[in-house]
This record gives sequence, structure tokens and C-alpha cells, in this order.
Amino acid sequence: MHSPTAKVSGYIVLMIVQIIFLILFWLFVRYEKAVLPQAIGAEDAGSANEHVSKYPQFQDIQVMIFIGFGFLMTFLRKYGYSATGYTLFMAALVVQWSILMKGFLHMESGKISLSLENIIDADIAAAVPLISMGALLGRTTPIQLLCMSIFEVALFAANEYLALNVLSICDCGGSITVHAFGAYFGLAVALMLRPASDQNEAGKHEGANYLSDISAMIGTTFLWVYWPSFNSVLADGAGGERAILNTFLSLAAATVTTFVVSALVSHENKLDMVHVQNSTLAGGVAVGTVCNLLLGAHGAVLIGIIAGTVSVLGYRYLTPWLTSNLRLHDTCGVHNLHGLPALISAIASAIYASMVTVDDYQSELEDIFPAMVGNNGTATKIMGGLGRNASSQAGYQLFGIVVTLLIAIGGGILTGAVLKYTNFRNLQKDEHHLDEQYWEVPALENKEE
Amino acid sequence: MHSPTAKVSGYIVLMIVQIIFLILFWLFVRYEKAVLPQAIGAEDAGSANEHVSKYPQFQDIQVMIFIGFGFLMTFLRKYGYSATGYTLFMAALVVQWSILMKGFLHMESGKISLSLENIIDADIAAAVPLISMGALLGRTTPIQLLCMSIFEVALFAANEYLALNVLSICDCGGSITVHAFGAYFGLAVALMLRPASDQNEAGKHEGANYLSDISAMIGTTFLWVYWPSFNSVLADGAGGERAILNTFLSLAAATVTTFVVSALVSHENKLDMVHVQNSTLAGGVAVGTVCNLLLGAHGAVLIGIIAGTVSVLGYRYLTPWLTSNLRLHDTCGVHNLHGLPALISAIASAIYASMVTVDDYQSELEDIFPAMVGNNGTATKIMGGLGRNASSQAGYQLFGIVVTLLIAIGGGILTGAVLKYTNFRNLQKDEHHLDEQYWEVPALENKEE
Amino acid sequence: MHSPTAKVSGYIVLMIVQIIFLILFWLFVRYEKAVLPQAIGAEDAGSANEHVSKYPQFQDIQVMIFIGFGFLMTFLRKYGYSATGYTLFMAALVVQWSILMKGFLHMESGKISLSLENIIDADIAAAVPLISMGALLGRTTPIQLLCMSIFEVALFAANEYLALNVLSICDCGGSITVHAFGAYFGLAVALMLRPASDQNEAGKHEGANYLSDISAMIGTTFLWVYWPSFNSVLADGAGGERAILNTFLSLAAATVTTFVVSALVSHENKLDMVHVQNSTLAGGVAVGTVCNLLLGAHGAVLIGIIAGTVSVLGYRYLTPWLTSNLRLHDTCGVHNLHGLPALISAIASAIYASMVTVDDYQSELEDIFPAMVGNNGTATKIMGGLGRNASSQAGYQLFGIVVTLLIAIGGGILTGAVLKYTNFRNLQKDEHHLDEQYWEVPALENKEE
Repeated sequence: MHSPTAKVSGYIVLMIVQIIFLILFWLFVRYEKAVLPQAIGAEDAGSANEHVSKYPQFQDIQVMIFIGFGFLMTFLRKYGYSATGYTLFMAALVVQWSILMKGFLHMESGKISLSLENIIDADIAAAVPLISMGALLGRTTPIQLLCMSIFEVALFAANEYLALNVLSICDCGGSITVHAFGAYFGLAVALMLRPASDQNEAGKHEGANYLSDISAMIGTTFLWVYWPSFNSVLADGAGGERAILNTFLSLAAATVTTFVVSALVSHENKLDMVHVQNSTLAGGVAVGTVCNLLLGAHGAVLIGIIAGTVSVLGYRYLTPWLTSNLRLHDTCGVHNLHGLPALISAIASAIYASMVTVDDYQSELEDIFPAMVGNNGTATKIMGGLGRNASSQAGYQLFGIVVTLLIAIGGGILTGAVLKYTNFRNLQKDEHHLDEQYWEVPALENKEE
Repeated sequence: MHSPTAKVSGYIVLMIVQIIFLILFWLFVRYEKAVLPQAIGAEDAGSANEHVSKYPQFQDIQVMIFIGFGFLMTFLRKYGYSATGYTLFMAALVVQWSILMKGFLHMESGKISLSLENIIDADIAAAVPLISMGALLGRTTPIQLLCMSIFEVALFAANEYLALNVLSICDCGGSITVHAFGAYFGLAVALMLRPASDQNEAGKHEGANYLSDISAMIGTTFLWVYWPSFNSVLADGAGGERAILNTFLSLAAATVTTFVVSALVSHENKLDMVHVQNSTLAGGVAVGTVCNLLLGAHGAVLIGIIAGTVSVLGYRYLTPWLTSNLRLHDTCGVHNLHGLPALISAIASAIYASMVTVDDYQSELEDIFPAMVGNNGTATKIMGGLGRNASSQAGYQLFGIVVTLLIAIGGGILTGAVLKYTNFRNLQKDEHHLDEQYWEVPALENKEE
Repeated sequence: MHSPTAKVSGYIVLMIVQIIFLILFWLFVRYEKAVLPQAIGAEDAGSANEHVSKYPQFQDIQVMIFIGFGFLMTFLRKYGYSATGYTLFMAALVVQWSILMKGFLHMESGKISLSLENIIDADIAAAVPLISMGALLGRTTPIQLLCMSIFEVALFAANEYLALNVLSICDCGGSITVHAFGAYFGLAVALMLRPASDQNEAGKHEGANYLSDISAMIGTTFLWVYWPSFNSVLADGAGGERAILNTFLSLAAATVTTFVVSALVSHENKLDMVHVQNSTLAGGVAVGTVCNLLLGAHGAVLIGIIAGTVSVLGYRYLTPWLTSNLRLHDTCGVHNLHGLPALISAIASAIYASMVTVDDYQSELEDIFPAMVGNNGTATKIMGGLGRNASSQAGYQLFGIVVTLLIAIGGGILTGAVLKYTNFRNLQKDEHHLDEQYWEVPALENKEE
């Protein structure tokens, strides 16, 4: 099982996957009409420009996915090649797969239309297995990550379709469909891969050192500054601007709160870098689902305070409990950064949905809560309010998170079982959190001098 | 005084501050009309989009504040957690406080209007205490930084109002109101907290190592590339484009000059990383106040050459002199990066203002030098030129910097006195520039192997 | 030759160059009309805004040049000051020089018009000597880099003018004019500076350590995420959006392929960081020249797969062969990241050009292949197709790369001869890849404790 042959066959499978992608792109994907040259003499439709106005936000999200996630995970002192390298690899794999999977759900006359929107969606989808990888960091092989990504993104696309298009819930920043899904899927996989009960102590290479903690802050800070782009990219007009403002304020409040709670609950009241690296971002997740709603500045700040508090307490008390009682190891604490704050966001969305009125949301109701509008969806019908009422929408929001959790956990358990019981090589305890299993690593620095 | 109780009460005060912010947001802050949903059937006013066109520049400034300042200050080899962490904490605190403080000065019918503009202003305001923190880096507790930020941002908002709205000076890139204010405020605090004369030597943990110098370059480089956004974000149209071009050229010239002067004045003619990390940016500060004026490319380049030269000479000769003669420690050399170049910018603004004519500035005169326009401010009146004349505007520019210096230094002395003589815990000499006072720090790496 | 005097005179030359730039800016450069204030009462022409819509892409390119190149080159463990510092210095020098050089080729009534376009072009030009520096990294003095930059950028501007304006080839992302030119120029200089045959082994300080490999990933990742901006910035409308999509897909496919091929050809099938840092980006280069053409998603993915494969194989087999047989040292492997993928791009451009029809490209033909349009260039004439036919355009594409290679290699040999045989100080073998020749470097960390 440990022979180079196993590695070689894994990478050959990966090459085959890439070639299958190539064939599927060739068969099914075509540029959208607005991305094709205009007929000579045609009016400038300007539709290409409309897409491209989202381009700066797309680039911000690119930085979040590749730099943000990649460097946040470099906190492990002997796993930095893998953190940055596997992030690049998984994101590059998933963006292609997601264009295809999400495309198949929205085909027109048998073809997938390709435009900037698709690659924005693809970058968002790439966040999902990267979140899950955070729960497993250092305990899987790249080939297991490949397998997990393929399963997970297919399920993610299906669940997102169900939540947004069938259940018609609001989830502007994706806290339900992206963060909750990715976190609980990853935790379910981690539960399946949990160590034998006599091997439950932390791995000897698990943990940060001074410099790896600082390089992780590169990830944290880029995630922090660009989070408003992540939450607002799919919103338009005034709703998009509210998404920016609410996310910014929630992050700010969560950050201040993180420092307070971290100092109050930590040993000798010293600040803990794990909290600063992660819980400061909880405000972005917790405001995600509701970021385009009429929260008011105080609503956003309140959500941030709650998120920062819950996240730090989760790191301090819940994660150790899960590790010792369920043998559930969550290397990056994705439960505290993505899982719990996403639950807060889902609950907040039910509360705010229950208070929605046509008077407040006016012409935006149709965009944000389409199911609350009459069947033919015209502005006139909005006034009539023939659709779902507010408490019913609130119920759907809760239903949406419950369904997401069931699919994520079910899918994660299944995926974990495949990784554990089929022919995959599983890393042994002493191989955990160590680049040198899969990377050529230079000799130690002090020997070089 | 050194007991954990002191720390705990500090953090509890911080929590109370955050809750007061929450209440003030709830009482006073409302979304601006353009951020609210449009009435059904209303024409698309497009005003939301107008704000949002500044969004990419806002994001650049976010990177400057959080990544730029944070990583530039990681040059201290044992203070990287604090550099990145306190930057995150102070910026998150100040953006909220600044929305409130600047909002109170511009309330309409008792409410503060919230839009993207406010958070752009808030990010700019966050630069002010971060500049001051650079002067004090490693010699304050986080609770002292909290206290300083609250005082300083209130004074900054008042001074900015005075300079821009009352004195009507031009200061497009904020060199007077942001850089000079932040630098001299911080230096005044540092003067008040200066060591006893028998403790004036450098702290034993002060200084960089090889890797901390490189991580500081992350900060430098992001500040460099995004500085045109900082200087141009508040300008419009052609003035905004000139601000970009002038800032870019001034930075380029300052950078080349920094390398020359650094090599010429340093030991064995070797380049000094401190100069490269800081003086290369002096071009951005020195061009700030005048960046939207008709400098011409040569004007911008000349300002950059002067700024790079003055800044390196400041690091090489003036800072050591201030330390040994006034016991004024300026950890990051903010005087050379922000203080002196801001003075250059103020002087340049007087020179260029003295040459302003209606023929040159045409329709932009009203935006850039509103006091030079007749009382009713119409285009016709511009032709009449009933307002301030050019030499009078030049005088006001100089008056603006003098007032700013007085308020900054006065406010800094007062704040320093509060930090020193009231109940705050002051760090002792051997606690300086050391994360482990306030952070859980992992054991040394070489012991981990 | 090794005396400080040599250094001093080098830096004085640099100062003189900066002052000459100042004078040339003063004599020849003026703001473009749209960057000047509008006449009072004039309609808002909106032309300034049109430029500024490229501003976010410009900023992405800034990050690529300064952060991307700078940090990618920090992989050398004792050359990080130089990697980040010289990048800053050379880019700051070259952007000024390139505004002048490219401006002289497009003067109107004896003046160079300055607008955002010029500094976008300047940033792209800065990539050229930075690519060449990659081939020489660690084996030149800063003064040699200065000299090389001045020669190279002048030649680059001339060659680009020849290729785009005279030969009228398409090269949207600059793979021919920027990447091939920079790579082969640098390699030619490296060939001229090659070591004596008894000194051909690798320098003792050449190579990465664990932390320098991770900081290089900062560069890689920013280059990756912003590459679509580099390739699309000079394209407009639908062509610009295609450039984004094709570049994104090619990068993703190259990245997955790099992981596969790296594992398959490396020792013990372990991944090699050199490949991950560099070959993942080969997809961006290989798609460059053709990125705005109608490749289809499958075309972009196929180009990425080929580029990733060729680039890794180049690192694994070709570079060691060139080193041992030609004594051609290529420190960063620019031949594999820029050279070979640019050749792929040129060949791809001939293939795609040979298939161009008016029916496919419609109104964009005029922009993308102007020589294929009738002499007076009107839309009517396009229909007539009086210009070059498709196979002739394909021939011109190949002619363009051949001419570029000749000029780059010829210019590089000449420049290398100047650096070697004239009065420049050449670094000795044991001074290679070592910051401390030209930088003040702190004592080793372990001695500081």
C-alpha cells in the first residue's frame, strides 16, 4: 500500500480526471452570446460590460480562495508546502469541475454558457472543499483530497440548487450553502477517519511556531479585507452596497470582540493567535446569509459581536471536548470559523425573514425573496403579495439549513467511508501534518550553514 | 499593577466600548437613501452604482491598512503577533468609531447616513492611529492603544473638519490631515512616554532579523502598489486620474532615489533595508496633498526625488539625533516616512496654490479650491473670481499645516500624559518589543525538533 | 575593482539617470487632454472615466509586478532582500524609462501624452527586465541590472513596435513581445556571463530552504490570481472577457497537470516545489498571445495541459542539460516558465490565425487582426476582406516570434558582452546568491538570543 506504485496510480487517475474535463468542456461548454464578437454594424449591446463590472470583485474572491485559504492553513509548522500547494491544486481542479457540474444544472439547448458569472460561481464553489480540507488538514493524501473534492462539489451543486431554486431561501453570502455545507461535510469525513481510541492525542507535528503563525496572518488579513466582496458579489444595486456595509461592520465588531473574549478565556489572559487568525473572520460568515437585508448598522454589529464570542468559545471549550469525547479532530477549527457562525447566520435569516414586508423591500423583494412574490412575479403582483408570507419564508430558511446539514453530513459520512474502507492509502499517525510524505523538502536550515 | 486583574479590566473596558458603539449605531446610523430599496416602479436612479464605482479603490485601501501597515510593522523580530494582530484590532475599532465621530459632524436631521463613502472615510481614518502606533511600536499595551485611538480619532475628525471645511485647504491625499497629524501626534505621545535618561539605549529586542525584514517587505510592497488608490479615492474625474498618475510617478522617483541615497550614506555603501522598506513610500506621502493638481509628470518626479532624499537622510541622521538628544524613540521612523514628507507636501501645496489660475483649472477649480470661487459658487462666478486669490490660498495651506501640527502635538502630549500618569499599566524596559507580554507564544522552534 | 569607490560611482550614475528622466519628463511629457480640467460649461466628455475603467486591472498588474515577481524570487534562502528590493528598484526605474521610450515612438506634435494607459504599458514593460533578471538572479550587481534594464527596455519597445505596428501580429497577453523577449534576452545575457568550465557547479548558496519556499508561494499565488488581468488589460469588450475566461481555464488546467507531471518525474514521486511555484503559471503564458481568440473552453484547457507538461519536463530535464552542457545557468528557470510556454503560445497563434474567418470574428476582426481588413479599415471593407488572408496572418505570427527571438538573443548577447568586458564589477563565484554583498544583513538569528 505504501509503495510508490500507489502514488503513481493516484496521480494517473488525476491526469485522467483532467482529460475527462477537457472532453466535457469540448462537448458541452460554449461562450455565452455576449462573449462572442458582435455582428458588424450591430448596436453595442453593452452586455459584456455588464458582466465585467463584477470583475474586480471576482479578483478579490480569487485572492481569498488562493491566498486567503492557502496561507491561513500555513499555521502548521511543517505543512506549509501542502497548505499552499494543495490549495492551489484543489482550487484549480474544483473550478473546472464546478463549471461543469453547475453548468449541467442550468443547460440551454444541451450546452453550458460560459461567461464571467461561471468563473465567479466556480471560485465560490472552490471554497467548499477548501473549508472541508481545513477540518482534515494534515491527515489526508492529495489523492484522498481529489476524491473528496469530486464528490463534495457534485453534492454541493445539487444542494445549492435545492436550497436556492427549489426551496427559494435567501443566502446572499452563501453561509448556508457554502460555509455550513463545507464545514459539516468536512467534519463528517473527519469523524469517519477518526483515530483509534488509543491514538487520540494530538499529532507530534500538529501546531504552529512563531513564523508559521505570522504567515497564517497573511491569509487571515486577506480574507478579512476581501470578505465584503465575497458576500456581495451575487447581489445587485442597493442590496449589493448593503452587503458590503453589513459585512464590513460585522467583521469589525467580531474582531474587537474576539480580542476581548480571547484574552478573558485564555491562559494568563494572554491573546491566542488561533482566535485572532480565525474568530475575527466569524463576523463575515455569520452575516453572510443576511448581508443584503435591511439589518441596519446595529444589526450587523450585533451579529458580529455574537459571532466573535461564539467562535472563540468554540475554540476554547467545544473543540477540545469534541476531540476528547468523539475523537473528532478539526485541525483548523472550521467548526468555529465556518460551522457555528453559519448556524448563527441561518437563525438570523429566519428572524429577519419573519419581519420582511413589501413596504420595506419594495422593488427588491422580487430579487431577494422571489417566493414571497405572486406567481407571475410582476411588480403589480408584488403589491398584491400573493406568494409566501414572512413567517413561512422564515420556516423555509430553517428548513434550508436543516436540509443542508443532512446532505452535508450524510455525504461526508459516505465520502469518509469510501476514503477509509476502499483502496485508498491512509496516512499513519506519525505521518500526519508533515510535508515530507508527499513533497521533496530541503534539509534543515541549520545544517545548511 | 502587573496583576492579571489589570489586564482583565482593560479588556472589559474594551468590550464596553464595543457595546457603546452598538448602541450609538442603533440610535444614530441609518442607511443612506440610495442604499435602500427603490420604490416599485421608480426609475433606476443609478446613485447606488455611483458609490460603488469607488469600491475597487476602497478594497485597495483596505489592503493598505490591514496588510500594508500590519506587515510593514512585522520587521521587529519578536513582535510579529502584535504588529499584525494589533493592526487588525485597532483598525476594526477605529473604523466603527470614525463612522460615528465623522458622522456626528455631518448629521442630517439627527441621523448619520451610511453608505460606501463612510467606510472609505473610516479606512482612511484608521490610518491615523496606525501611523501613531508606528512611533510607539513595542512600548505600549493594547489597552493604551485603545485609549490613544479613541482620543486621537476624535481629534483627527475635528482637525480634518477644520482644515477642509473651515479653512478650505486642498488635501486630496490627506498628507496634512492624515499623515502629518498621525505622525506628530504619535511622536508627541512617544515624547511623553520617553524613558528615563539612564534607560535611553535601544531595547534588547528592538531590531529586525533576516526573515522579519522580508515579511516587512510584504507591507511595503502592498503600500507601494496601492498608494495611488489612497491618494485618488476622494478625487473625481480628470483630477482623480491625475492623482493616480502623479502618485505613481512620485513613488517611482522616490524609490530610485532611496536606493541611491541609502547606498551613499550607509556603512560600507551597503543598502539598508529600513530605508528600502520605508523611504520608497515617502514619494506617496510627499505628493499626497497636491496629487490632483497640475504638477506635470516632472513635478511629480521632482517631489519624489526630494522625498526619497529627505526620508533616507532623516533615518540616517535625524532619528538617531532625536533619540540621543530628546530620548524620542520612533520605532518605525514614522517621522521620516510620514512626518517629513507630509511637511514637504504642505509646502508644495502652498507653492502650487500660489500659481493657480482659473484658466488652468477651469471647471475643476470649484472642486479643488472651493474658497477661490465666488460666494454663490456657480460657474459664472468662477469666471468672476470673487473668492480667495492664489496667494491667499497659499497662505491658508501653510496655516492648515501649522494648525494641524499644533492640534496633533497638543493632543499627543495630553494623551501621553493620560497614558503615563493615570492608572494605565506602563511596560517596563525589558518588556519592550516582545509579543510574549500579551500573547501566548509557542516555545522556540529549535526546541520543538 | 572591488573597492567601495566602484559602488559609489555606480550609484551616482543611477542618480544621474533619474535626473535625466526628470529632465525628459519636463521637456516631453504632458497630461493627455482628457486628464486636464474640462472647460467650464463643457459637456462631460466621459473620456477620463473610460480610461479609469481599466484602473482595477492596472492595480492587479501592479501587484503581479511588485509582489508577484518580487516574492517568487525570494525562494533563494540568502537572497530575499535582493529579490524584493531589486524588484522594487528595477520596476521603479523601468516604468519611468518605458513611459519615455514608448512615448517617443508615439509622439504627437513633439509631446508624449500621459494618461492611465501609459502607466499600464509601463507596468507591462517592467515585466520584461524582471523576467530577464530571473535568469541571472544572484549573479549580477544592482548596477549591472540598471545597465541591462536601460538597454533591454529600449530594445523591447522597438521590437514591440515592430511586431504589433509593422508586422501587425496579434499578441494580446504579450507572450511573444514580453515573455519570449524577456526570457531569451535574459538567457543570452546569462550565456555571456557563464562561468569558466571549472566553476560550473551550483553556487553553495543557491537553493531554497523551507521558509523561503513558502514565501515564494506568495509570489506564485498572486501571479496566478491576477494573470487574467495581465492578459486581458489591453483587450476590449467581448474580447476582454474571453481573455479572462481563457486565461483562467488555462491556468487551472496547467496547475492540475503540473501536480501530475511533477509527481511522476520527480525523485520518489514526491512533488517538487520548484514546479509548483513556476509551472502552474505556464498556462498563463502559453495562452497569452491567443487569449482573446475564439479558443473555446476546451482550447484553453488543452493549451494549459500542454504548457504544464512542457514546463515541468523543462525543469526536470532541459535546464540541467543546458547547465551542464552550455554552462547556461537559469536561476529561476525562466526558460521553463516564460520561454517555452511563450513558444507554445506563438505556435498556437499561428494555428488559430490560420483558421480565422470574418464570419467568426465579425466586428472584432478589425481590432484583433487589423491587417486582415481592407486598407481603409471600414466595416464595409471588412466584409470585402481585401487585406491579408488567414494563412498569411499565420505566417506573420511565426515571423513575429522569430524576429523577436533574434532581437532578444542578439540584444542579450550584446548586453552581456558590455556587462562582462567593460568596466563593470562582476561578482565572483562565492559572492553569488548572497544578499550581504550589497545589503546590510543582521547577524544570524540564533546568535541574537
